[in-house]
Amino acid sequence: MRLILSALVATTALAGAAQADALRDKAAEFFKPLPSTIPALNENTVTPEKVDLGKALFFDPRLSASGVFSCYSCHNLTTGGDDNMETSVGHGWQKGPRNSPTVLNAVLNEAQFWDGRAEDLAAQAKGPIQAGVEMANTPEAVEATLNSMPQYVDWFKAAFPGEENAANFDNMAKAIEAFEATLITPAPFDAWLNGDDNALSADQKAGLELFIDKGCSSCHSGVNVGGHGYYPFGLIEKPGSEILPVGDKGRFSVTETADDEYVFRASPLRNIDQTAPYFHSGKVWDLKVAVQIMAESQLGEELSDQEADQLVAFLGSLTGKVPEVTLPLLPAETTGTPRPTSEVK
Amino acid sequence: MRLILSALVATTALAGAAQADALRDKAAEFFKPLPSTIPALNENTVTPEKVDLGKALFFDPRLSASGVFSCYSCHNLTTGGDDNMETSVGHGWQKGPRNSPTVLNAVLNEAQFWDGRAEDLAAQAKGPIQAGVEMANTPEAVEATLNSMPQYVDWFKAAFPGEENAANFDNMAKAIEAFEATLITPAPFDAWLNGDDNALSADQKAGLELFIDKGCSSCHSGVNVGGHGYYPFGLIEKPGSEILPVGDKGRFSVTETADDEYVFRASPLRNIDQTAPYFHSGKVWDLKVAVQIMAESQLGEELSDQEADQLVAFLGSLTGKVPEVTLPLLPAETTGTPRPTSEVK
Repeated sequence: MRLILSALVATTALAGAAQADALRDKAAEFFKPLPSTIPALNENTVTPEKVDLGKALFFDPRLSASGVFSCYSCHNLTTGGDDNMETSVGHGWQKGPRNSPTVLNAVLNEAQFWDGRAEDLAAQAKGPIQAGVEMANTPEAVEATLNSMPQYVDWFKAAFPGEENAANFDNMAKAIEAFEATLITPAPFDAWLNGDDNALSADQKAGLELFIDKGCSSCHSGVNVGGHGYYPFGLIEKPGSEILPVGDKGRFSVTETADDEYVFRASPLRNIDQTAPYFHSGKVWDLKVAVQIMAESQLGEELSDQEADQLVAFLGSLTGKVPEVTLPLLPAETTGTPRPTSEVK
Repeated sequence: MRLILSALVATTALAGAAQADALRDKAAEFFKPLPSTIPALNENTVTPEKVDLGKALFFDPRLSASGVFSCYSCHNLTTGGDDNMETSVGHGWQKGPRNSPTVLNAVLNEAQFWDGRAEDLAAQAKGPIQAGVEMANTPEAVEATLNSMPQYVDWFKAAFPGEENAANFDNMAKAIEAFEATLITPAPFDAWLNGDDNALSADQKAGLELFIDKGCSSCHSGVNVGGHGYYPFGLIEKPGSEILPVGDKGRFSVTETADDEYVFRASPLRNIDQTAPYFHSGKVWDLKVAVQIMAESQLGEELSDQEADQLVAFLGSLTGKVPEVTLPLLPAETTGTPRPTSEVK
């Protein structure tokens, strides 16, 4: 009897292991765990000096014309790297056109913004600083601000050794990109991909299986479970205009190709349960509802309640450990620093 | 010869020491070094759990109606604990009536706000959250927000053990006060008061001597070099209305006593060179100019250029070491969390 039991236990364990391996093999076709080191950047070597400078800049509200907004305002590192609003509030209390995406792991996206119009985070960083509805500043004013504070000038020299006039707008963007490249959040899903069978619950594994089998992973794949590739929102069935506003044609405004109407970059799904509300319009606050909308609009699938719950459980396994960030101490303004202005032009 | 030289050196050293002691004795009549431990609070025991909760609340923009502003927005710990603006920008892009004071060492002020209308930081914390031009929220909405997130409810239980409905508006304020009580910044001036003769430069010592002799320390005294006592702005000569706007009668609005017209709490001067612009109106950006205005309006003194520089040098010795603050990780909203609204009522 003991022998039979042992054999049974061994068989079950083997079957379990084989099952886990099968699911992992299947998952490996679509996903990759986060790298264990900071990703290499395009023409931007990451050094400790550059990361420190980038952190200072990321938190500095003086990069905005009003002095109210920093990168951190809409990419708040205490709340999942975004701002918990439909669309961000910016200069003059204007509302931005699209929901603020998380900065966490953003370095691993193929391109930045909902329409992929910036090729990397350095290019991205220059956008909101100049956008009239966001930080409403100019490269010239930013450079005047940075160069008015000797401490910043020294930090730029250390981060970009040997460069003349190192404290410039391009280097600002590169330093911010270097800091943001450190914002990588390893999650239970990574532990599981790396071989820890116990890192996911049974529901999360069932959700992962559904995620692949239903076809979610056709678009939301890769290391960020999304963040690359462009797809029409409403591939099978267009959602209502309250979720997909008619005026925002997505990638069409980048490519001016009719095929790109209402096309958006597939959202990266890491930390998605920390970053409501959802979609470029930010109109959906409940992750389960967002999952149901996606299933209908992109896959033509009506999910059972249990399926939706399991998919949400799997998405929860993508929520990772945010690196500890200590607040930088920024240089004080000098008499030469441009003064903040809340005026709306 | 060697003997004579040695004697001379000894005498000079003794004279220097005696001089240092004399200045220190004089300073001790007006000032006190920062305490080496967190100050005790009024009916609010400081515990690690309360400090951690208070830090989370301090950084949480969901305490504002719009989700845009947290305590940190106007009391930015990266830039001296204030916001580097004349007056803060708040809900609906409205401008606040007075310059945002630093939160650093604020726990040691006798009372809070420019007119001292809040007796402590717990009372103070409730003000901006409810002010229509700042965070524009209500105690009821704040409590709904906090109680919608189980993690917050647990944190409140740990910080206020044994209390029913611990996640309430009063406890929120107490927790914020406990966190803010940790924001103490020991400065070179403290080291000098504590006996380190080399902690101040010759110019700083000369500035300190002037600060006492000219009479600045009659109002700016105590552990925060100000922050207690109320005095008319323009005791000898009223500054122009661009600096002292006619509409803001200061403490008069608290006491409704004619004597309190244009009376304000003497500013605490710690970290003053990090917190431009100056005065309740925030109209002066240059610390030297602010010192000159004070000398004229409060003491009827026209300072020489050297005197003003030495006073500014002394004030620089009040800039201290800001404690390292790691960003908290806040709980995610739930479906029950009140949604942010940028609407202006």
